[in-house]
Amino acid sequence: MRKIEHIGIAVKDLEVSNLLFEKLFGAPAYKFEEVESEGVTTSFFQNGPNKIELLAATNPESPIAKFLEKKGEGIHHIAFDVENIEEEIIRLKKEGFVVLNEIPKKGADNKLVVFLHPKSTNGVLIELCQEIK
Amino acid sequence: MRKIEHIGIAVKDLEVSNLLFEKLFGAPAYKFEEVESEGVTTSFFQNGPNKIELLAATNPESPIAKFLEKKGEGIHHIAFDVENIEEEIIRLKKEGFVVLNEIPKKGADNKLVVFLHPKSTNGVLIELCQEIK
Repeated sequence: MRKIEHIGIAVKDLEVSNLLFEKLFGAPAYKFEEVESEGVTTSFFQNGPNKIELLAATNPESPIAKFLEKKGEGIHHIAFDVENIEEEIIRLKKEGFVVLNEIPKKGADNKLVVFLHPKSTNGVLIELCQEIK
Repeated sequence: MRKIEHIGIAVKDLEVSNLLFEKLFGAPAYKFEEVESEGVTTSFFQNGPNKIELLAATNPESPIAKFLEKKGEGIHHIAFDVENIEEEIIRLKKEGFVVLNEIPKKGADNKLVVFLHPKSTNGVLIELCQEIK
């Protein structure tokens, strides 16, 4: 794990929150992307070496819709940048972490991603992501 | 705001969580610090340009004790590194953000810190921190 790649924040209304985070960072989102398979629409803000990803639901079955219903708006996950996602999955499973999807899936921002179950990580939903070359 | 300085994670038992995050990062905490004024004891893990701060309560009146009671273990705040905390407070107040303590206070890790009210930031507790020189 080389750095915090991004922090994912669940929001109700992407347009409203884009304006809010533009004010916070003093610069607008540099990218917008829909991930149909996850039922989310996203925007990305750059902050030095890190990114903030805002996530809004596009349908009621989306994991973000369920998160908002249960917990309201707020931090949804932390994503760490990894060099080799397959090796990290093997290493973390050996250490006792619960990997939610053992086969990396394609996420937003041209990344392969896996999630660790928050029960094994102090209630924190952790994503590992590797840039697709 | 120049980068994510750290992510603060509320934990029940610092020793147990130190071991967990040591496994996650493949390296132990590099620093331990008690902040008596906040009723917390902390540990820090380095991750590239970023840090993870684990926070446990040292008394039942601690903000972390209250957070754990209400929400359980998990992400407590995101801290952004700023060059000039006074200027950022002025800028963010003008933009409509609610600053919880207008006079920066001394936090862990040799930092001056202020917090923004999560009601003005999509449910995310945001800390601004400036290194004390």
